Amino acid sequence: MANRGSLPFDPIHRAAQLWDERIGPSGSMAAVTSVMRVQQILLSAVDAALRPHGLTFARYEAMVLLRFASRGSLPMRVMGERLQLHPTSVTNIVDRLQHDRLVRRVPHPTDRRATLVELTDDGRTRLDEATESVTAIDFGLSGLSTEQRDQLFALLTDVRRAAGDFD
Amino acid sequence: MANRGSLPFDPIHRAAQLWDERIGPSGSMAAVTSVMRVQQILLSAVDAALRPHGLTFARYEAMVLLRFASRGSLPMRVMGERLQLHPTSVTNIVDRLQHDRLVRRVPHPTDRRATLVELTDDGRTRLDEATESVTAIDFGLSGLSTEQRDQLFALLTDVRRAAGDFD
Repeated sequence: MANRGSLPFDPIHRAAQLWDERIGPSGSMAAVTSVMRVQQILLSAVDAALRPHGLTFARYEAMVLLRFASRGSLPMRVMGERLQLHPTSVTNIVDRLQHDRLVRRVPHPTDRRATLVELTDDGRTRLDEATESVTAIDFGLSGLSTEQRDQLFALLTDVRRAAGDFD
Repeated sequence: MANRGSLPFDPIHRAAQLWDERIGPSGSMAAVTSVMRVQQILLSAVDAALRPHGLTFARYEAMVLLRFASRGSLPMRVMGERLQLHPTSVTNIVDRLQHDRLVRRVPHPTDRRATLVELTDDGRTRLDEATESVTAIDFGLSGLSTEQRDQLFALLTDVRRAAGDFD
């Protein structure tokens, strides 16, 4: 992952310059490579903050989603839609959280083929503790003003909309 | 990964609203979650464009770096610094590219402990073909104007600088 040694120049900016000179218009290359790198930076920071709580970002996100569910529980299928994850990934996440007694599976009251997932009391406590840790590091994001952060969110929203994530 | 079903609302925006109401200021949550999602979208698009060429984004990036090296070759250590990858990852990437005869390892002329990596003729051809495919899809980035794309790059540059990637 991250090489902790700092370079005297921005390697992505330099690559974009060389690309423009030798290959042609670099277009979105620099922006896309930057998204990849910033994702590594953020994931590494958030996972480090969550590790003492026995959680990863994926498991933490699933717990936040359950915390926000109006009935306190959600079908697995809906969890996959909201988290934009493959059903197999949702199953793995729920299995792991259930193993740690942070969530439980309960029968759906009206649909016998569906399974609901809900937080346990331990899960709610763990989630609150984990939330303190991730908000303390502002989810790993630094270097931006509040205005710039909102600008970043707005730009990425356009990308997600164009990719068909939502209407 | 990507659930191809489109939601009637933005799940990240909704989560941020609920967070503000029930937990407190969501701060950077929405921006960070968006980076994670957009990274998935872009990686999925770029890897799909590279798959017919037998490449992944990680291997493609390594080949671009070698293409740009002023002497046509680079020490493994420098590849790791520029790609911001762990030495083990660089070794895996170079092993795989060498197996496919796209790069070769050559002895360093003056440092007997270092190994240089250079593109083969096949590697150069493959890289040119792959570059056509990724530029044709603009590296998977859509939904942004040229100005917005540059704005995105500038914001992410600030994040990378704050994380200590470069001075």
